Amino acid sequence: MALRSALHWQLPALKYSTTCWRKPQRGLHRNIIEALQAAAGSENVSTTTAVREQHGKDESYHRCKPPDAVVWPQNVEQVSRMARICFKNNIPIVPFGTSTGLEGGVLAMKGGVCFDLTKMDKIVELNTVDFDVTVEPGVTRKGLNDYLRGSGLWFPVDPGADASLCGMAATSASGTNAVRYGTMRENVINLEVVLADGRIMYTAGQQRRFRKTSAGYNLTNLFVGSEGTLGIITKTTLRLYGIPEAVVSAVCSFPTVQAAVDCTVQILQCGIPIARIEFLDDVMMDAFNKYSKLSYTVSSTLFLEFHGTEKGVEEQIEATEEIVKMNNGSEFAWAKDQESRNKLWQARHSAWYAARALYPGYEGYSTDVCVPLSKLPEIIMATKEDLVRSNLTGPIVGHVGDGNFHCFMFMNPECEDEGRRVKEFTDRLARRALAMHGTCTGEHGIGVGKRQLLTEEIGAVGMQVMREIKAALDPKGIMNPGKVV
Amino acid sequence: MALRSALHWQLPALKYSTTCWRKPQRGLHRNIIEALQAAAGSENVSTTTAVREQHGKDESYHRCKPPDAVVWPQNVEQVSRMARICFKNNIPIVPFGTSTGLEGGVLAMKGGVCFDLTKMDKIVELNTVDFDVTVEPGVTRKGLNDYLRGSGLWFPVDPGADASLCGMAATSASGTNAVRYGTMRENVINLEVVLADGRIMYTAGQQRRFRKTSAGYNLTNLFVGSEGTLGIITKTTLRLYGIPEAVVSAVCSFPTVQAAVDCTVQILQCGIPIARIEFLDDVMMDAFNKYSKLSYTVSSTLFLEFHGTEKGVEEQIEATEEIVKMNNGSEFAWAKDQESRNKLWQARHSAWYAARALYPGYEGYSTDVCVPLSKLPEIIMATKEDLVRSNLTGPIVGHVGDGNFHCFMFMNPECEDEGRRVKEFTDRLARRALAMHGTCTGEHGIGVGKRQLLTEEIGAVGMQVMREIKAALDPKGIMNPGKVV
Repeated sequence: MALRSALHWQLPALKYSTTCWRKPQRGLHRNIIEALQAAAGSENVSTTTAVREQHGKDESYHRCKPPDAVVWPQNVEQVSRMARICFKNNIPIVPFGTSTGLEGGVLAMKGGVCFDLTKMDKIVELNTVDFDVTVEPGVTRKGLNDYLRGSGLWFPVDPGADASLCGMAATSASGTNAVRYGTMRENVINLEVVLADGRIMYTAGQQRRFRKTSAGYNLTNLFVGSEGTLGIITKTTLRLYGIPEAVVSAVCSFPTVQAAVDCTVQILQCGIPIARIEFLDDVMMDAFNKYSKLSYTVSSTLFLEFHGTEKGVEEQIEATEEIVKMNNGSEFAWAKDQESRNKLWQARHSAWYAARALYPGYEGYSTDVCVPLSKLPEIIMATKEDLVRSNLTGPIVGHVGDGNFHCFMFMNPECEDEGRRVKEFTDRLARRALAMHGTCTGEHGIGVGKRQLLTEEIGAVGMQVMREIKAALDPKGIMNPGKVV
Repeated sequence: MALRSALHWQLPALKYSTTCWRKPQRGLHRNIIEALQAAAGSENVSTTTAVREQHGKDESYHRCKPPDAVVWPQNVEQVSRMARICFKNNIPIVPFGTSTGLEGGVLAMKGGVCFDLTKMDKIVELNTVDFDVTVEPGVTRKGLNDYLRGSGLWFPVDPGADASLCGMAATSASGTNAVRYGTMRENVINLEVVLADGRIMYTAGQQRRFRKTSAGYNLTNLFVGSEGTLGIITKTTLRLYGIPEAVVSAVCSFPTVQAAVDCTVQILQCGIPIARIEFLDDVMMDAFNKYSKLSYTVSSTLFLEFHGTEKGVEEQIEATEEIVKMNNGSEFAWAKDQESRNKLWQARHSAWYAARALYPGYEGYSTDVCVPLSKLPEIIMATKEDLVRSNLTGPIVGHVGDGNFHCFMFMNPECEDEGRRVKEFTDRLARRALAMHGTCTGEHGIGVGKRQLLTEEIGAVGMQVMREIKAALDPKGIMNPGKVV
């Protein structure tokens, strides 16, 4: 349990980190495999190396840790039955969605059975009058929004990746729209969860969907962000929003980081209900232009989006332009029609790939912190200086309206020293955020890499309480072991 | 643990329900009293009957259950020290704020020590740039807003009563503004909590205050709404909001309940960011006019409030007026300046007292349910019909924008049959909400009276999980026993 994040940075491993480290295949006893096959059908259980390796890794730098078997349940009863088999036999369970996580959440640290939930892909119930929808884990963010097309509704939480919505609930995902619409914490109404021992639970009661409640403990938000360590999320009921009458996006550049970030803080302080406000630094803009074949100014930049009525958006833009001018920002480059807006945000969401493209063959790692808004200029400036001092390149991009930003790190696998410097730099960044009353992760989660930082963040008693809850709900410690606590 | 809500309705007891039932005074051992006195000073410990009785009751119909002693800690260290004394000696702990709860949350069901936290009344830290504030339990909602006057900021969650903000966190309070600004669940950033054994914990880490995080389990929202059964909240960090540039209130009446509620649903479906939308039925309006010496039409009525920029509010009003007209609503009666707005909302908040005034000497009970918006017309109509069938008068008033409403019940203490009918009616109301995918309480909490309904709402496994969490964090069961689980 005391496996420290540092272990994952042992440098000789880095050069193999995108491929799989094959742990000595103890495998599962034949009886177990047969029991799983009886539960879900033999075509839905695999122990082949290729499948296991495919399920032992996400989009993080963490080394692949394949499970002993992969199962594809078709419904919650099968999930429950297979969880019971694992529970009885003390076999780890790792829930698996689209594997787009960034902190190693799906790695099978102690082997066991990976529950690939993508075959459970029904949109169970849509209530357009009540603005809610219930979906299974195979339904992704984009899949849901495609389904909603024409209904006048949408689901705004958007972490960039086309992630599973249940996975997004499990990791407390957020992204570009959170400044206006909140994160998964504010948008999950109910969850169907299979507990470690196979019991099926509804965090807010079966089929319940209300805008508020004060009935008992908030189990919904205990499971949101629990990263598969307390149970397997098999359904989520989500809050939907009306598609705004008017949507306008804009880009503007600033002479300095400080000016762009000051501008962000002032926009929020003025109460402008901005829908997106994204910061990209000069390094990021350069990569961005190259990757997306665009020609924005290579300088600190804000991507903005305004949602509202026609008049409301006009008013928001007017107020924002004034603040931008006061901070020596450029004129706005507009993206008003849907096509150009899609292009702009598609490009923004490809920031990670754009940055990666600068360093072909390098290992990549996207780290993430979040601080009070007032600390944002200071921490971004300090981080830029630290990058220079550490002789590292790290494009900075972030959801600055929430005080949340990412630094993309790339390491030459041939250069042992660089890996060490990156590790030291990212730890310093997280501790800098902690020292400013912030958090070591605004949206990527703890996974395997940030457990030591979580302890520093939450304190000894908070960690004890998290472990007490974990032990109460997962007494055998089989739920996604080696993560979070 | 299986004490059912029905017990609290035993009719012979009702006639004494505003006075105290004095349990045989076992009292606490002298050593315990001395230890508490040593921890907080002898002037801050009382065992007098008057003080104990004063602390054994809230604003609900539940019979007074006095604690064995009342303590007034001055700081978190004293709370911790005294909790440790109680833990060691298996003595129940009941946290106490302003005792404005409506479900008996402060009743000392098993005696023990009442922690009256009102002497801890510091506003610890205000961060105007970051829109957050940290307060101790003695700070009330109105006290905070008075303190914020001139800062351009306010705290919007408003349950009507001038409750302690930490108490509001403990009970997951909400109220008239929740439709726009959310409930305590969305507005508590961090909590300082003293656990049953005296450990001091920060749910989001000490001194942390960020707009979002995905670091570990969401302990903050586990404690919000836990009604003192998991720990004693000794500080809360809250999200503040900028005071809107323009605020306009209005009142309009409708020919039928259905028309008023349909209008509410349509206003929300159109995405109008209404700040308050309150329904009062004809019975309520009659009481309201009499109590506040006003002369509104005695008919189904909506009280509305719009927040935004001058132009934005104009636009909201225009759109709302159109919907009101479509539903045969009256012209708006305006309350534009601060004084008339204050008068209007003061009157709205006195609805309970207005209703009580109709039945001098009667027992009162305010029950509360919440359903999906689409079910609101149906449930309110069914409830009105049930009242007629049950030969009961029950003014209906509610935060209908959230699907949440209250029914105020009054019982003649001389009429045994009326008490039974009220009990049966309120149970039917809660179960009607449950059958419509709703909750048995949108904002009053479970307390002692709704535990059976919670079980029906959340299901057997959900209740087991709540009890597992309770047992993990409060192994001796000393934290506010007899409540919630």
